[in-house]
Amino acid sequence: MKIVCNGLELSDAVLKVSKALGSKTTNSILEGIRLEAKDDTLTLSATDQELYIEKQIRAEVKLEGSTVVPGKFFCEFIKKLSGEQIELNLNDRNVLSISYTDSVVTIQCLPANEFPTMKSLSRDNYFDITSKDLRELIDKTIFSVATDDNRPVLKGALFEIEGSSISSVAVDGFRIALLKRTVQKASGDMSAIIPARSLSEISKLLEDDEDIITVYVEPNYLMLQIDNTSITTRLLNGQFIEYKQVLEKSSQASTVVTINKEQLTNTLDRAGLLSRIERNNLVRFDVTDKVMLVSAKSDLGDFKENITISLEGNDVSLDFNARYFTEALRVIDCEFLKLNFNGIAPCTITGVEDTDFTYLIIPLRRL
Amino acid sequence: MKIVCNGLELSDAVLKVSKALGSKTTNSILEGIRLEAKDDTLTLSATDQELYIEKQIRAEVKLEGSTVVPGKFFCEFIKKLSGEQIELNLNDRNVLSISYTDSVVTIQCLPANEFPTMKSLSRDNYFDITSKDLRELIDKTIFSVATDDNRPVLKGALFEIEGSSISSVAVDGFRIALLKRTVQKASGDMSAIIPARSLSEISKLLEDDEDIITVYVEPNYLMLQIDNTSITTRLLNGQFIEYKQVLEKSSQASTVVTINKEQLTNTLDRAGLLSRIERNNLVRFDVTDKVMLVSAKSDLGDFKENITISLEGNDVSLDFNARYFTEALRVIDCEFLKLNFNGIAPCTITGVEDTDFTYLIIPLRRL
Repeated sequence: MKIVCNGLELSDAVLKVSKALGSKTTNSILEGIRLEAKDDTLTLSATDQELYIEKQIRAEVKLEGSTVVPGKFFCEFIKKLSGEQIELNLNDRNVLSISYTDSVVTIQCLPANEFPTMKSLSRDNYFDITSKDLRELIDKTIFSVATDDNRPVLKGALFEIEGSSISSVAVDGFRIALLKRTVQKASGDMSAIIPARSLSEISKLLEDDEDIITVYVEPNYLMLQIDNTSITTRLLNGQFIEYKQVLEKSSQASTVVTINKEQLTNTLDRAGLLSRIERNNLVRFDVTDKVMLVSAKSDLGDFKENITISLEGNDVSLDFNARYFTEALRVIDCEFLKLNFNGIAPCTITGVEDTDFTYLIIPLRRL
Repeated sequence: MKIVCNGLELSDAVLKVSKALGSKTTNSILEGIRLEAKDDTLTLSATDQELYIEKQIRAEVKLEGSTVVPGKFFCEFIKKLSGEQIELNLNDRNVLSISYTDSVVTIQCLPANEFPTMKSLSRDNYFDITSKDLRELIDKTIFSVATDDNRPVLKGALFEIEGSSISSVAVDGFRIALLKRTVQKASGDMSAIIPARSLSEISKLLEDDEDIITVYVEPNYLMLQIDNTSITTRLLNGQFIEYKQVLEKSSQASTVVTINKEQLTNTLDRAGLLSRIERNNLVRFDVTDKVMLVSAKSDLGDFKENITISLEGNDVSLDFNARYFTEALRVIDCEFLKLNFNGIAPCTITGVEDTDFTYLIIPLRRL
């Protein structure tokens, strides 16, 4: 393999595929980036066996070939080169010379044939969505994904398409995050449970714009292309939680509190300084006419703050893990919110006008 | 104690004195901030017994008194308050109520009489210096201070005043950093070894401007005032290294290399990716006519980069710890530098025109 390519393009490509690099792996080939030079193209790929990212850039290919470079080092090194032109030259002992200006660095590579190949997906099932909407579907639910291994299927978010509606749902056993958007086009109804780690990397590659992204779905895999980057991820299999029933049950609120989002955020932020000390993040909400009293306690002292609200329904007193509220509030864009309570049943956070999102949070039990 | 004060002023004051809070201490009073209300002033103080910071703000004092609040919590809490007016009210069980808008937080305080007092310094020995110069004297040498406990006196920087000249020197056994500046006024010649931790906190309080700072020096203490903040630090006692002799010896260079600072920085940055892997940061400099070859090696591969230089004197080949160069280069402002070699003697970095700084670095021994 012998090629000449643009340093900035190479650096950008390496950075993008490096998101799929395996870490803490026992198989060192997964810590590598595969380089393949063919025709007038350099293809870079990386995978941790769950996520597979591949990107192509133009290159002047003097000799075709392929190899696997140590990923982390190659990524950091290429990033630090300021030169316009980079020459990559592989010798017959699989040593790669990286030449720039009048300097040269040589690195020992790994065998290209040991690098896992990614299956190519059929293009029968797909949907089209704007980059911005796909990114929001990820960013506004992913924080509720389960992090423990009790129910592996909950370590991903469920994407469901029905007609032109698409929803993303994440559940960790104590809360539900649900966001709805619209697809531009879909080959039919479908669903997929996408691992959180893949979602997080996909989100980083998505711009906040109206570009249309096509997502291909198969029973075990999902693939999408963002510019010249193609991303394939395995899907999670299993029975997802029947979240619709849970949300249905919680939709009859006996207490509806309308509250300013920023005020609630700031109050919980301050309460957290005390409640975090006891490590359970416990805050109490006491809802009475026109006022919600937020309180927290620790050995250090007592916290009490009143927030002016508008109330429909009964008074209510409940304990919550403040973090669940804080994380939901961070991704909500509205100025005012509704907190819907029904005795000791879960509380839901919904928009005053916006009906696209629902966050459900289970209160803490009290002795 | 009962006072009303401005929230922003209190927050700023708490943040400033908190830099002196003790951490990892077994004496919990040192983790507290002392509050004292008297006349129309609130005085805040914190100390770790080495550094003592005190700041005064205006307050409406309704009842004089003093207490010690838990420092970290109080600092974070006050920072998060957006209200203009804050009322602090201490009851007779030493519980402090912090009232703002229509909310109130109560915290258990520590006894004020257990808080260490700071001795007040005589004002006989002092020097005046601009804020900018004092900050540079700290920032451009402090990274060379010793971090191990072998010679405690080297865990500080030596400040020396002779006539109108002031110098700051830090030595860690492998390198020397020296910077010279001018004082505006001094009561006489003097010297002080200031602990690195105190220097670091003092630097954070200094602006990059021409304001004159007066520094008072006693055998065991040093005190300065920045706006309404007074900072007192203990000094280190003992025999500092005879750095002048070492620098004198190194001043006869048999090889003088003139090199572009940015190029050397970028090359060492890239070399570091390989040399850091072996954890010794070793790079080799091979100086020949017009070119300095910088090379590094690890199991991963070989690094070789040429930098164009202008050379006076003999060729030379030496190994160095790249970090010592990188840290010095980061604080040097010149475009071009001189590297002065003399066989296997230490290398010094000096300016081409600027004679105010000298960095000395000992080469690594080679088998």
